[in-house]
Amino acid sequence: MSFLDLLLGKPLASDEARAECIGVAAGIPIFGLDALSSAAYGPEAALTLLIPLGAAGIAYMVPISASIIILLAIVYFSYRQTIQAYPGGGGSYTVARQNLGVTAGLLAAAALMIDYVLTVAVGISAGVGALVSAAPSLQSHTLSICLGILVLITLINLRGIRDAGLVFMAPTYLFAGTLLAAILMGLFKTFLSGGHPMPAEPLPPISRAAALPSTWSILQAFASGCTAMTGVEAVSNGVKAFREPVVAAARRTLTIIIALLMVLLAGIAYLVRAYGIQATAPGRPGYQSVLSLLLAAVAGKGLFYYVAMASILIVLALSANTAFADFPRLCRAIAQNNYLPHSLATRGRRLVYTQGILVLAVVAGLLLIVFGGITDRLIPLYAVGAFLAFTLSQAGMVGHWRRVGGKGATESMLVNGLGALATGITVIVVLVAKFVEGAWITVLLIPALLIAMGLVRRHYHAVFLEVRSPTPLEMDDVAPPLVILPVQGWNRIVKKALRFALKISPHIRAVHVDCGGGSEIFRDEWRRFVEQPALAADLAAPELVVLPSPYRLILGPIVDYVLEVERANPNQQIAVLIPELVERHWYHHLFHNKRASVLKALLLLRGNQHIIVINVPWYLDT
Amino acid sequence: MSFLDLLLGKPLASDEARAECIGVAAGIPIFGLDALSSAAYGPEAALTLLIPLGAAGIAYMVPISASIIILLAIVYFSYRQTIQAYPGGGGSYTVARQNLGVTAGLLAAAALMIDYVLTVAVGISAGVGALVSAAPSLQSHTLSICLGILVLITLINLRGIRDAGLVFMAPTYLFAGTLLAAILMGLFKTFLSGGHPMPAEPLPPISRAAALPSTWSILQAFASGCTAMTGVEAVSNGVKAFREPVVAAARRTLTIIIALLMVLLAGIAYLVRAYGIQATAPGRPGYQSVLSLLLAAVAGKGLFYYVAMASILIVLALSANTAFADFPRLCRAIAQNNYLPHSLATRGRRLVYTQGILVLAVVAGLLLIVFGGITDRLIPLYAVGAFLAFTLSQAGMVGHWRRVGGKGATESMLVNGLGALATGITVIVVLVAKFVEGAWITVLLIPALLIAMGLVRRHYHAVFLEVRSPTPLEMDDVAPPLVILPVQGWNRIVKKALRFALKISPHIRAVHVDCGGGSEIFRDEWRRFVEQPALAADLAAPELVVLPSPYRLILGPIVDYVLEVERANPNQQIAVLIPELVERHWYHHLFHNKRASVLKALLLLRGNQHIIVINVPWYLDT
Repeated sequence: MSFLDLLLGKPLASDEARAECIGVAAGIPIFGLDALSSAAYGPEAALTLLIPLGAAGIAYMVPISASIIILLAIVYFSYRQTIQAYPGGGGSYTVARQNLGVTAGLLAAAALMIDYVLTVAVGISAGVGALVSAAPSLQSHTLSICLGILVLITLINLRGIRDAGLVFMAPTYLFAGTLLAAILMGLFKTFLSGGHPMPAEPLPPISRAAALPSTWSILQAFASGCTAMTGVEAVSNGVKAFREPVVAAARRTLTIIIALLMVLLAGIAYLVRAYGIQATAPGRPGYQSVLSLLLAAVAGKGLFYYVAMASILIVLALSANTAFADFPRLCRAIAQNNYLPHSLATRGRRLVYTQGILVLAVVAGLLLIVFGGITDRLIPLYAVGAFLAFTLSQAGMVGHWRRVGGKGATESMLVNGLGALATGITVIVVLVAKFVEGAWITVLLIPALLIAMGLVRRHYHAVFLEVRSPTPLEMDDVAPPLVILPVQGWNRIVKKALRFALKISPHIRAVHVDCGGGSEIFRDEWRRFVEQPALAADLAAPELVVLPSPYRLILGPIVDYVLEVERANPNQQIAVLIPELVERHWYHHLFHNKRASVLKALLLLRGNQHIIVINVPWYLDT
Repeated sequence: MSFLDLLLGKPLASDEARAECIGVAAGIPIFGLDALSSAAYGPEAALTLLIPLGAAGIAYMVPISASIIILLAIVYFSYRQTIQAYPGGGGSYTVARQNLGVTAGLLAAAALMIDYVLTVAVGISAGVGALVSAAPSLQSHTLSICLGILVLITLINLRGIRDAGLVFMAPTYLFAGTLLAAILMGLFKTFLSGGHPMPAEPLPPISRAAALPSTWSILQAFASGCTAMTGVEAVSNGVKAFREPVVAAARRTLTIIIALLMVLLAGIAYLVRAYGIQATAPGRPGYQSVLSLLLAAVAGKGLFYYVAMASILIVLALSANTAFADFPRLCRAIAQNNYLPHSLATRGRRLVYTQGILVLAVVAGLLLIVFGGITDRLIPLYAVGAFLAFTLSQAGMVGHWRRVGGKGATESMLVNGLGALATGITVIVVLVAKFVEGAWITVLLIPALLIAMGLVRRHYHAVFLEVRSPTPLEMDDVAPPLVILPVQGWNRIVKKALRFALKISPHIRAVHVDCGGGSEIFRDEWRRFVEQPALAADLAAPELVVLPSPYRLILGPIVDYVLEVERANPNQQIAVLIPELVERHWYHHLFHNKRASVLKALLLLRGNQHIIVINVPWYLDT
């Protein structure tokens, strides 16, 4: 236990839940890491698709980023309202479920679940990818480093949400601080130079245009850039994790995260155009990330550059943490509605939903292992889920306002309606632009998950219908059960079991299996030790039934006999008494047969409602 | 089941045991394979050690073989008497135990057990080694072929002793027949040529003497040659496997095996000297086994040569079978005296001692794996065990005749005494000659096994003393138990358990764990569904105990409460009623917690004699 305490922290009592709640300062790293870290790969993803357009492509970065920022603003206002309307934690699942129906809710849930798993795998592997490109000697350890980080994040999250917030605070603020400083510095230099700053480090030459700009290529760049928006819904899912006043704290956290992200996206886009930075093709010699080029151009390759690059690396690798904060809460909400196993709704020793954390870690770990720690090919899969969830949640909010009505409802409905429309169009754009590259997998996975959740719910419902009982206990007709006791010889274990049988019922049948030989001795013992004393005390002796067993099986004949007695006495409860030697040492298992355990298992397997198993343990003193 | 039937044969009833008994024809392959196959490696082992003596060495082969044959004759007469004296299967273990005491018996048993394991590993690997030297392309598959043969022999033996006899009959008789034919042919040619026959195939030149003959080198050659005698005790262990009249059948089998072996050994020694065949060094280029050289010299490399070589190969590989026939019988005898786990004395579906067969297969398989299928280095380990068992068995027979007395006892005592002396001296010779090469391992292993068997017996004895009860059942004071029933909600499962509790006792306590929240609903249900109907029926309602659980644990508080109640009621039996949902499909395990199983295990582990576990299963109809 003490090792567990050290690893995961002491167990927390249920009434310590309030103290585990977090404020805005911790909320930003926990729920914002995913969104903020996307500033590191969203613009890059868009710029990479613009390489074939040459210098012209760079110019398109500003309008593309502007569209993304506008979309972000719409989504922001929309989630602000969601937080207020659902202070109990209104993720896309809850909002869609309550306003658009169960199927829409589950659709949002399935999309988000897939998204979170991908976020973990892709986030960690992106961070490690950056690390490996900086220190190529680590190349061969890619997968081990990925899994190590996964285990680390899992352990931190199992320690509880407060500890996670404390751990991730420093890298998050370092990342935001250095990037903001670089942007400010860049803007200043651009202003001083009259719009055409000289890069502090020479930039790679801009490649020639290989294609003409087309709507299709711009749309594809936009769709890739939209990955910058994943993770934005996190705060709305986790409202309950905040300290009172929860709504205000959650909204402030959301505002700061979105504002930071907008500034970062805008700043990066502006400076990319001002400095004329073209993305380099990933995987080719001379590849450098866009942020690396930008930081070097603005500040030169000094200490600042390396600190900033290190913080980007750490934040990318840790961006998985947001998924760890949200996925278990999402699963819990679904499990509470019986669409996922109930164990996902149980809080563990540190008040977090342990099972959800472990499921996420295992699935993401498998993805990392299957792809060897390099998950580039998974990236196209994962904007679809996020935007589908956005759309359903906005559409749900429209329904919400229509239902609730009152002052300001019309305006709110308009904001959310606009959000639903914008994100809905984005889903289609992303789906079309990325379909062949992998989005089709998401399209297949979502209905599969929906069906699975439906089946889980059907099972729970059938069990509920079968076991529910709104009627009181019938206290009449409490005839004692018919007790069956397997006995192979006369000893204290059997005697103890027989005495227990006498305590609970006058109807006792001892069953002896005769494998040929030896049973005469037992019959004699039974006469001397049971029948004669019973006769002397003028009591009915337990009946002895001897079953022949030509094939030397012991358990088969006993189980058959029990089932036969059960059929012959349909109105009586049958209790099978199983004496069992309890071994205190593992090696004792070699010396004694496992008959008691196997008989218990056989009776459970082949038995029915009328058969009850009573285990009379005998503890060896030795 | 039908696959098992196909693989191992239909189960045999206990009263079919007689029909499973074997006659002399099947007895020779089953109990003789080991002894007969030693003709293929015993002389070779001796000749190999004589290589350094050059031509002079070959001449020593006749006196060495003569000594071995005389020893064999002594052992033969001795075992003939053993069979008659112990028609119930008088292996060295039984004979030594009954006449020299338990320790001597166990010593013989330990020696034989080690010997059998080694026989299996060395026999199979020798056969495969011969095969591989004939077809070098199989070299890389040595281990796989060894393990394949091991599995095959194991399966055949699991099918029962009769099937094994039928399978091994053909190769055994082919082996004996071809070797005898070759010897006759060789003798004839030697006679025709006046004592100096010309080899049909040129023999490799005889190497020059590199050393002078010394007592030590002759003794070493003798000790190696003695491996030809392993397996001779097999018949005496397996007397019970023979058809009536058992003693006559077993004696005839033994006579034929020993006579055949003597003729083979004598013939080989004579022809080796007549043709002047020197062994070639194993593992060196140009190596050929002595029998290969002999067969080629006598008959040329024609069809006969290849048939004979193939039969040698097969018999070597299958010589392990004798160990499979005897080892399980030996283990059974020891287990019946409580020195080995009792499961070794249980007859399986085909009336063989399944567990013993499997133990032998696993241990021999491990040896083969550890040594990579090449077990030459194990050979020095294994004459010690056989001769130690011989000696103890002969010495035991001396004791037997002294005890029994009667007509002819003195003569019999003399025969067995001579046997004990001769084999005893041989043990010392073998031990000294082979000590450094590996016999010391046997010297260490035997006491280790003895100690282990002693500990097993001590455990069984302690358990026996603890559980035995030569006293009758006390039928007074059969107060009903105190029933404790964990309940978390009101449903039909709980209702069924409560009704069962009412059937067996008026003292019932329902235990509810309150993890914070939700328990008010249950208290209300309890009032409505249990307390009010009880009040209406004017009966005592079961007591409801609510246990607080700040750390949200369910099982810990229940177990603690049970133990506490047990301490407070030292004179009452406590019965814990555990309702359990029985899952019919494996995937249902995901949906329901394993609380019932874990609670059962916890109560067994932490409980004591006063606590009984009652399992009330609920079967889902769905």
